[in-house]
Amino acid sequence: MSTTQFDVIVIGGGPGGYVAAIRAAQLRLKVAVVEAAQLGGICLNWGCIPTKALLRASEINHMLHNLEEFGFAADNVRFDFAKVVKRSRNVSAQLSAGVAHLLRKHKVTVINGFGKLAGTQGGQRKVSVSTDGKDTTVLTAPNVIVATGARARMLPGLEPDGKLVWSYREAMVPTELPRSLLVVGSGAIGVEFASFYRNMGADVTIVEVAERILPVEDAEISAFARKALEKQGMKILTGARLGTIKKGDDSVTVEVTVGGKAQQVTVARVISAVGIVGNVENIGLEGTAIKVDRTHITVDPYCRTAEKGVFAIGDIAAPPWLAHKASHEGVMVAELIAGRSVHPISPLNIPGCTYCRPQVASVGMTEEKAKAAGYKLRVGRFPFIGNGKAIAMGEPEGMVKTIFDDATGELLGAHMVGPEVTEMIQGYVIARTGELTDAELKETVFPHPTISETMHEAVLAAYDGALHI
Amino acid sequence: MSTTQFDVIVIGGGPGGYVAAIRAAQLRLKVAVVEAAQLGGICLNWGCIPTKALLRASEINHMLHNLEEFGFAADNVRFDFAKVVKRSRNVSAQLSAGVAHLLRKHKVTVINGFGKLAGTQGGQRKVSVSTDGKDTTVLTAPNVIVATGARARMLPGLEPDGKLVWSYREAMVPTELPRSLLVVGSGAIGVEFASFYRNMGADVTIVEVAERILPVEDAEISAFARKALEKQGMKILTGARLGTIKKGDDSVTVEVTVGGKAQQVTVARVISAVGIVGNVENIGLEGTAIKVDRTHITVDPYCRTAEKGVFAIGDIAAPPWLAHKASHEGVMVAELIAGRSVHPISPLNIPGCTYCRPQVASVGMTEEKAKAAGYKLRVGRFPFIGNGKAIAMGEPEGMVKTIFDDATGELLGAHMVGPEVTEMIQGYVIARTGELTDAELKETVFPHPTISETMHEAVLAAYDGALHI
Repeated sequence: MSTTQFDVIVIGGGPGGYVAAIRAAQLRLKVAVVEAAQLGGICLNWGCIPTKALLRASEINHMLHNLEEFGFAADNVRFDFAKVVKRSRNVSAQLSAGVAHLLRKHKVTVINGFGKLAGTQGGQRKVSVSTDGKDTTVLTAPNVIVATGARARMLPGLEPDGKLVWSYREAMVPTELPRSLLVVGSGAIGVEFASFYRNMGADVTIVEVAERILPVEDAEISAFARKALEKQGMKILTGARLGTIKKGDDSVTVEVTVGGKAQQVTVARVISAVGIVGNVENIGLEGTAIKVDRTHITVDPYCRTAEKGVFAIGDIAAPPWLAHKASHEGVMVAELIAGRSVHPISPLNIPGCTYCRPQVASVGMTEEKAKAAGYKLRVGRFPFIGNGKAIAMGEPEGMVKTIFDDATGELLGAHMVGPEVTEMIQGYVIARTGELTDAELKETVFPHPTISETMHEAVLAAYDGALHI
Repeated sequence: MSTTQFDVIVIGGGPGGYVAAIRAAQLRLKVAVVEAAQLGGICLNWGCIPTKALLRASEINHMLHNLEEFGFAADNVRFDFAKVVKRSRNVSAQLSAGVAHLLRKHKVTVINGFGKLAGTQGGQRKVSVSTDGKDTTVLTAPNVIVATGARARMLPGLEPDGKLVWSYREAMVPTELPRSLLVVGSGAIGVEFASFYRNMGADVTIVEVAERILPVEDAEISAFARKALEKQGMKILTGARLGTIKKGDDSVTVEVTVGGKAQQVTVARVISAVGIVGNVENIGLEGTAIKVDRTHITVDPYCRTAEKGVFAIGDIAAPPWLAHKASHEGVMVAELIAGRSVHPISPLNIPGCTYCRPQVASVGMTEEKAKAAGYKLRVGRFPFIGNGKAIAMGEPEGMVKTIFDDATGELLGAHMVGPEVTEMIQGYVIARTGELTDAELKETVFPHPTISETMHEAVLAAYDGALHI
């Protein structure tokens, strides 16, 4: 066993962890990253990135079945499902290798193994690293960043079995397209898989315990998305509870109860996407002052835990559990450790994106939350059908909703559904981060012809000045 | 002949004119729009909008020839060129009808005819309207907005002849795909047509008198775009002068001289895209104080001409000659007439977009201009190849460049080339309009995984903190 001294040890090489390491290294700190699995974490290997490659394929399949509208035709349109999946895996592999390259370039020490807080020694934090259950190394540093991430939450009876019931992992590497699918849970992950499989040709049913899909989104956007997905042939059951689950040889029958009425839904495969739990086990939290609340580490706005010198970032820490929150926290904590002055991130300035078709993106408060917070609101809405570029692209299904504080003109929230909205939402995020008001947004000249003009119109609409509706 | 009294008369129903009319009507003014051709003007009928429909088709064609990369295949891939063109015309017709509907809804009087300033009468401006050369109506109002737009500039010897030499009009409604094409001029219009025809399968050569294509863009972006277009098989001749032009039955031979060396280029068709001239003729400017500078009306920052109560907006006024500038001026002038306080638009806050593949978008100063203005610069660059979403989409060709004032952190300019950058540039436009600095842009949490993260990285790069390169 060797001992090595660092300025910062990062436990976990996901987007929070590796970004923290790179930023710390840029600020001339000596950094180690301990990662038990693949660099890039779930996001890069089993989440954000490979799903986007899959969703790209499903967009292409959709396009290939709507060629006539654009004056095109083709015969014998087909896909090789194995190749579609392989491409997604290759993208992940390429990016994971990219992270390894970046860490090398920044002279970050990468240690393959399972990292664990292991007490203190001479005022330094100790981290022990184990491989195959055997402790191999002890590292010391004044600062440790815990970025161990999260994993899929399991519903009793719906644990992934490698064949009939899938978590996101199995859903990402199917060997063949299932003829039918039940997706349990309608958060971003569930809806993205539902969209991918539906657009590739599977029969898809979503069940959601809440009264609407994408429950964290604004209710109007959620209703718009539901209508769009149902138009594509998806079945959506909300306010739904699961009952008995019967597994056959190549099918699963699930009892779903909606409004007191039970029905049997038989499908080839089930995807369980009912949220995440933090990876708080066996990382040495026992006997420390660090608090855990429902599988997540309690932190202050600077990601500090109750133990001096120990930080927690990303999915193991406070919500929202999104990769861009994790990496932003990584930068913040690295800068804090390096002695820079930093600003905590307001959760209301962190956008959320769902890459289904149509896409959903938002930042800030929903109308409901803004009302509950006591604001007098000005709400603007603009449909993509009033936008020339959307019509020219053949993508007129979408809308933007803005929510302003009537008293100050503050943009409290912005909500979008439609093509490419995940690439557009950043404009509103910049506006919120820069504390801009309706005045600056009205003055902004959005380029024509772009779908982003709907962002301007939705602002004008909140002040009774929309031009194209 | 009848006389009718309005609060505002708008001459020209293009994006500047019809938006001015709608906004004035929203502010309870009595408005007339005089339009000799189609509502929506060039932009909607012969410019921005129908070209986007065509470019959508060329994107689809590109995709159809790269299916294998994504795991797809199809046989006998084909397009019906007449249908592609028809769809583009239908989009324009739909949107022009939409403008008519909006004007009706806002109770704007639309008069079909050729409008002309016709002196004053009792302190009111007179506008005469003629149809088929006969004066039919005289309108009066205290305020007139001249929005007569512009048309293609003609090169001697390269006047559109309806068969071999095309302006944008003929290029938009081809009856068949020419086997080869010479595009004269590499501004946005020229490059967009070049991109459309190349992606549909034609051999395309661009000739440009300046030393680089897209000469108003930042030199690095221009070079990047050139390389990308050449990789697609386009021939590009810069610093090129046209010599003799010989027309055959179904071909044109043009002498092109580059660096003193002449070569003969023979093509099926020529598209002339060498800029615009303002429509200043026969609109009653003679005998007024209104000044015309090289076919454009001289205005102050509030779009006021030298005649009290007469405004000029859009392409007939000062550059940049872009539809979104026109419509923004329309809103500004309508509000000014209604007695509201307004802010002039800074040309440096008006984005420019070119919808070729890859797309180009920018706002503010180029590096060259910022240097010439005496700033000490911080320049950031980030390539799309460092972006996970771009790789997942199979679109890693692109880059972002940011230019900051080292003294103040002001974002002086932002320049983008790559997929969907025309939808993304608005974030930087919002930042510029809100006078944000590097500090707020660094703090902004861009959603992951999106291509828009490159906008963040390019900011970080200007301050030596890019994470993924």
